[in-house]
Amino acid sequence: MTEDRDALAAQLDKEHVFHSWSAQAALAPLVVAGGLGTRVWDHSGRTYLDFSSQLVNVNIGHQHPRVVAAIQEQAATLATIGPATANLTRGEAAKRIAARAPAGMDKVFFTNGGADANENAIRMARLHTGRDKVVSTYRSYHGNTGAAIVSTGDWRRLPNEYARGHVHVFGPYLYRSEFWATTPEEECERALQHLRRVVECEGPQSVAAILLETVPGTAGIMVPPPGYLAGVRALADEHGIVLILDEVMAGFGRTGEWFALDAHDVVPDLIVFAKGVNSGYVPVGGVVLSNAIAATFDDRVFPGGLTYSGHPLAAASIVASIDAMAEEGIVDNARKIGTDVLGPGLAELAEKHPVIGEARGVGVFWALELVADRATRAPVAPAVMGRAKAELVSRGVIPFIADNRIHVVPPCVVTADEVAEALAAYDAVLTLLDEELT
Amino acid sequence: MTEDRDALAAQLDKEHVFHSWSAQAALAPLVVAGGLGTRVWDHSGRTYLDFSSQLVNVNIGHQHPRVVAAIQEQAATLATIGPATANLTRGEAAKRIAARAPAGMDKVFFTNGGADANENAIRMARLHTGRDKVVSTYRSYHGNTGAAIVSTGDWRRLPNEYARGHVHVFGPYLYRSEFWATTPEEECERALQHLRRVVECEGPQSVAAILLETVPGTAGIMVPPPGYLAGVRALADEHGIVLILDEVMAGFGRTGEWFALDAHDVVPDLIVFAKGVNSGYVPVGGVVLSNAIAATFDDRVFPGGLTYSGHPLAAASIVASIDAMAEEGIVDNARKIGTDVLGPGLAELAEKHPVIGEARGVGVFWALELVADRATRAPVAPAVMGRAKAELVSRGVIPFIADNRIHVVPPCVVTADEVAEALAAYDAVLTLLDEELT
Ligand SMILES: Cc1ncc(COP(=O)(O)O)c(C=O)c1O
Ligand SMILES: Cc1ncc(COP(=O)(O)O)c(C=O)c1O
Repeated sequence: MTEDRDALAAQLDKEHVFHSWSAQAALAPLVVAGGLGTRVWDHSGRTYLDFSSQLVNVNIGHQHPRVVAAIQEQAATLATIGPATANLTRGEAAKRIAARAPAGMDKVFFTNGGADANENAIRMARLHTGRDKVVSTYRSYHGNTGAAIVSTGDWRRLPNEYARGHVHVFGPYLYRSEFWATTPEEECERALQHLRRVVECEGPQSVAAILLETVPGTAGIMVPPPGYLAGVRALADEHGIVLILDEVMAGFGRTGEWFALDAHDVVPDLIVFAKGVNSGYVPVGGVVLSNAIAATFDDRVFPGGLTYSGHPLAAASIVASIDAMAEEGIVDNARKIGTDVLGPGLAELAEKHPVIGEARGVGVFWALELVADRATRAPVAPAVMGRAKAELVSRGVIPFIADNRIHVVPPCVVTADEVAEALAAYDAVLTLLDEELT
Repeated sequence: MTEDRDALAAQLDKEHVFHSWSAQAALAPLVVAGGLGTRVWDHSGRTYLDFSSQLVNVNIGHQHPRVVAAIQEQAATLATIGPATANLTRGEAAKRIAARAPAGMDKVFFTNGGADANENAIRMARLHTGRDKVVSTYRSYHGNTGAAIVSTGDWRRLPNEYARGHVHVFGPYLYRSEFWATTPEEECERALQHLRRVVECEGPQSVAAILLETVPGTAGIMVPPPGYLAGVRALADEHGIVLILDEVMAGFGRTGEWFALDAHDVVPDLIVFAKGVNSGYVPVGGVVLSNAIAATFDDRVFPGGLTYSGHPLAAASIVASIDAMAEEGIVDNARKIGTDVLGPGLAELAEKHPVIGEARGVGVFWALELVADRATRAPVAPAVMGRAKAELVSRGVIPFIADNRIHVVPPCVVTADEVAEALAAYDAVLTLLDEELT
C-alpha cells in the first residue's frame, strides 16, 4: 500500500510532470512524502538526512510546527487577497524583514520567488537611475526569468539571452583566481580593480546597478575577502550606481547571520530575498528598498507587479518563521555549528582526502571542491560527481551537487549528531573517490 | 480592538509595504481581514461583495472549505520539497490539469504565477523552433518579468523594454476596430490578414511563437470572433510557429469553460495557466506542453527552472480546487450565471445608461465600456472612473476598474441574488455617471 504510493508518485511524475534544468527521458527522481527537521522520507518509510536543504531553502528545517500552524491558521482566515489591499499579516511580515535589514531600509516589495525579486530590483535600479546596464558576475545565479537569467552568469544564461544591457565580470575566488592573485588581499584588490575597469569601459553613466550575491551560492560558496563588498560600495557611490545584494540563498541564517551582509562592512541600496525568509513553505520572495529608492516611487508609478504580491499565506509563514528563528536561536545555531562542528569536520576531511581541493564556507554554507589533481586543481570528471551523488543517497544522505563540488548545506537547525552522521557518509564516499584518482 | 487592527493594518502597510503598479504616497488601500464565497470583510466587520475576484483569480470564491482543508492537510504532511524530487500530490495536480487540456497535451511544467509561466512557454517555443521572435498583441498583459513584460502590449511594457525579439500586432476588437471593420466576420478576416502580413514582414522563419490571451482580459475582455483562433492556428501551422494560448485569466471557469479555448475550434501547442487553477490560494502557475514540444526535451536539457516548481502546498490546493469545481458544478454555474443572469442584466444596464458604450463578455467575464459619447465612442475621463470606483466601494461592491471600463468579474460561485445585489449598485452608480455626461 505505502510502496504502491511510491510507485504511483513515480508514475504520475513520469507521465505528467515536466522537470526543470533537465533532459526528461532519463529522470528517476527520489520520491519524498514527508519530513521533519533535517530528515525527509518516502511513503515506505525510507529516511534521508537532507544535507541539501532541497534547493538550499529549508533553513528552518522541514515541517517546523510553528510555521505549519501559522499556515493552517492563515488558510482558515484568509488564504489569498490581492496586492491592492492592506492586510495585517502582510504588514507584520514586511515589518519583520525590514527590522533585520540595515537602518534606512524600511519598505518591502513582495514577489513569488527569487527570480522575480531580482527582476523587480533591476527594474527599480533602472528607473531610479534612468540608466540601462546591469553589471553582475559570471559565477552567479539570479533566477530563470527574462532579466534574471541574463544577469545570471553561469551556463544557464547561454540558451536564454533575450534581454539587453547585461554585462558580466569576475568576482573574487582565490582558489581559481582570474587575476593571478596568491593572497586574499591581492584577490580582493585585483577583483575590485577589474570591476572598476569594466565599469569605466562600459561608461559609468550608463550603469544602473551592480548586482552581486553577497556570498555566491550555486557558483561555489565563495565568501568574499574582507573589504571586497565595501570596495564595491565605494565604487558604486562614486558613480551613482545602485548596489543590489542578492541574499536569496545566503540570507536568513544560512551564513550564521540574518543577512550575509551583516558580516561585511556594506549597506546596499536593495536587498533581494526569498528561500530562507520562510524556508519556502509557501512560494515567496521580495526586495527590501532603501528609503531613497522607495521615495523615487512616492509620486511616480512603479511599473511592476504580480497577482500574488504580498500573499497572506506566504506572509503568515514569514512571520512565524522569523519569530521562531529568533526565539529558538536558529541563526546562532547555524553560526555555532559552522564554527564548532561542520567547519572543523570538513577541514579534517580535506586533510584526509586527496580528492578534496578546497573546503570553504561559513555557517551551514560549505563547499567541498573535488579535484583530479591537487597541484593543477583540475576538476574531477562529471562521472565522479554522479558516483558521489549515488553513493551518498545510498547511504541515506541527500547531497547538493554542483559542477565538481559537494555543497554541504543542511538546515540551520542541524544538530552536532546529524553533522557527525553526514560526515561519516561523506568520509566513506570520499574514500571511494580517492581510489579513482590513481 | 477590531478597529485597532484595521488601523494597525493600514499603518504597517503605509510604513513597510511597497505596492505594485502604483505611486506610493497617495495610496489608502482597503483593509481585508477575511472572506467567504463572494464576500470579504475587514476587522471591524465591514463587508464587501467582491465583483473583482481580486485580480480576477478567486474563481472558486474566498475560503472554499475543501481547498482550505487540503492546504492545511498538506502543510501538516509536507509543506515544501524541491522540484528534483517526485511527489504524489504534485503528480495528482499535473494529472488533473492535463486531463482538462486537449488530447496530446500530457505534461505540465509548474511555476509560481502567470509571468514566469509565460517566460517558460516563450523559452520552450524558442528552443523548440530554434527561432527568436515572439508575436503578441498590443492589447494584452502577460506578466511583469523580463520577457513577459515585453510580450505584454499595454502601457506596462513601455518602461520595461529590456528584452529583444518581441513584435506586437492588433487583435480583433470590433468596438474599436483597428481595421475599419463593421461586422464580426470582417473584423475576424481583417485581423487575420493583419497578423499574416506582420508575420510575413518579420520573416516567418524567424518567428518562434504567436502568444495570445485566448480571451484578452485586462485589455478589455474581447471574446474573439468565431474562426479567429482557428485562423491563427492555420497560420502558425503553415510556418512551423508555436501557438501559445495564455489562459491565466480566462482559464478554469472564468468563461464558463474549463479552458476558454474549449469554446473555440483550436488546439494550441502550449497553454499558460495560473489564477483560476487554484484561485490563487497558494501562488502557482504553469505551462501545459504538447507532447511534441515535451519530446524536444527528452534528451536535451530544458534550461529553465525555479526553486518552487511543483510546490506541494500549491499542488494540494490545485487538486482540491479542480475536484471541488468539478463535483460542485462551479464551471457550469459560471456559464449559466453568464447566460441567464449576468449577461442579460448587463445588457439591460447598457440599454438604460448612455454612459455605457458596450457591454460584452461571457460566463463571469464581462466588461462595461464607459464612453463620454456613444457616437464617437470617446472613453470617459479617468476622473469618472475614479468616481465610479469610490461610489461602488461605498455601496459595498469591490469593482475591477481598467482604463475606461468596469470589469464585472465575480467568483464563478456567484449566485443570482448576489448578481442582483451588485447590479443594483452598478445601476445606481451608472445613473450618477450618466448625469456627468451632459
Ligand atoms: C542567489 C540566488 N538568486 C536567485 C535565485 C532564484 O530564486 P528562485 O528559484 O526562487 O527564482 C536563486 C535560486 O537558487 C539563487 O540562489
Ligand atoms: C492573461 C494574463 N497573463 C499573465 C498574467 C500574469 O500573472 P501573474 O500576475 O501571476 O504573474 C496575468 C495577470 O493578470 C494575466 O491576466
